[in-house]
Amino acid sequence: MGHIPHVLVPGPWESDPLPLTADVLHHLERVLRRRPGEPVTYTDGAGTRGSGIFRGDGVERGEEQTSPRSVRRVTIAVAAPHSSDRARLIVEKLGELGVDRLMWLESEHGSPHAPRPDKARAWAVSALQQSQGDRLLEISGPVPISNLWSQGEAVCVADQSGRPVTDVGESRDVVVMIGPEGGFAAGEVPEEAIPVSLGPRILRTETAAIVAAAFFGASR
Amino acid sequence: MGHIPHVLVPGPWESDPLPLTADVLHHLERVLRRRPGEPVTYTDGAGTRGSGIFRGDGVERGEEQTSPRSVRRVTIAVAAPHSSDRARLIVEKLGELGVDRLMWLESEHGSPHAPRPDKARAWAVSALQQSQGDRLLEISGPVPISNLWSQGEAVCVADQSGRPVTDVGESRDVVVMIGPEGGFAAGEVPEEAIPVSLGPRILRTETAAIVAAAFFGASR
Repeated sequence: MGHIPHVLVPGPWESDPLPLTADVLHHLERVLRRRPGEPVTYTDGAGTRGSGIFRGDGVERGEEQTSPRSVRRVTIAVAAPHSSDRARLIVEKLGELGVDRLMWLESEHGSPHAPRPDKARAWAVSALQQSQGDRLLEISGPVPISNLWSQGEAVCVADQSGRPVTDVGESRDVVVMIGPEGGFAAGEVPEEAIPVSLGPRILRTETAAIVAAAFFGASR
Repeated sequence: MGHIPHVLVPGPWESDPLPLTADVLHHLERVLRRRPGEPVTYTDGAGTRGSGIFRGDGVERGEEQTSPRSVRRVTIAVAAPHSSDRARLIVEKLGELGVDRLMWLESEHGSPHAPRPDKARAWAVSALQQSQGDRLLEISGPVPISNLWSQGEAVCVADQSGRPVTDVGESRDVVVMIGPEGGFAAGEVPEEAIPVSLGPRILRTETAAIVAAAFFGASR
């Protein structure tokens, strides 16, 4: 298909060529079958990207640019699913859609375990590279629900009877809580949480997370 | 979790109790462990739903109501993916989100094969039951791209540089074309197709299909 590969090279960038990790080298040489001299784009996962040339074990740097931070920082806070396949789907799709942060939530009907941080990061890196993004999904948690109110963001909760997503002010950073299969337990969601509707159907946890990412990502 | 199970009972409904298929019986008795006398909701998958009682091998009918047809009929037309996992994810998620129709498209970089119709329907039935919907996803194809213009619908194509989804008139039935990995081939998409953007990132086929379903479903 001849597309130009896009790779994550964490900063700070202090050399030229930039060194590539063994994983990225394997991806370029073995999976994509690229050869030295071919073009490649690269990002630090923090908003900067460049167009360079693949050089054996590094990338020769070319034109670089930094994208402005989005007006609104979007965090999707998801009750950790019991199924590791569903957890992986959430990481991959939020990474692909360019969400800023994923936080796993502790909740009564959810799993007490989130995917291992190193595995989750690897899924997010693949999603970033494949979708040619320039900001790597940050992943944290599991955290208690009460922690969500510590940073001054608008905290929403996905709820069939909530208001439309477009009613939430677009200039403020936002956290969207997504419940586990079976929903949050009674009393688990503080009253301050703003209910928002993701549509008329009852959605699975991973579907709700993806839809929330699309809605809130699109409106910033 | 004590939720009320929701089952598909295709119409026309001409008896009381309504008969249940072996699959649905298995689901109620073995998977959900429900016993005769417990409440159940049921739908014909064509817009009507009812609240009844599970009675051994049937459902005793209760109050029934038919939801109005949505103002806009939404068809997602997707280049058949090479991966059967991705194809299944598309069927499940579009079924869950309440899209009216899924059409598999023939396209140069896509797969010539769509999932077997009986398997695809079973996935859609599960999604309908789980999401408590009342219209079963219709699935057809693979069809040639040119067939999409035969029914007077607004035909859109997902394209990073397209216009916002909200620019597409909300009163007209709509078909949204989603390309295969690698995109549609040059000349494959007729000029009449209206490019619409699903966001700034390059999305995988299944992600684009889910996001399009959420956007077009939400705006009707």
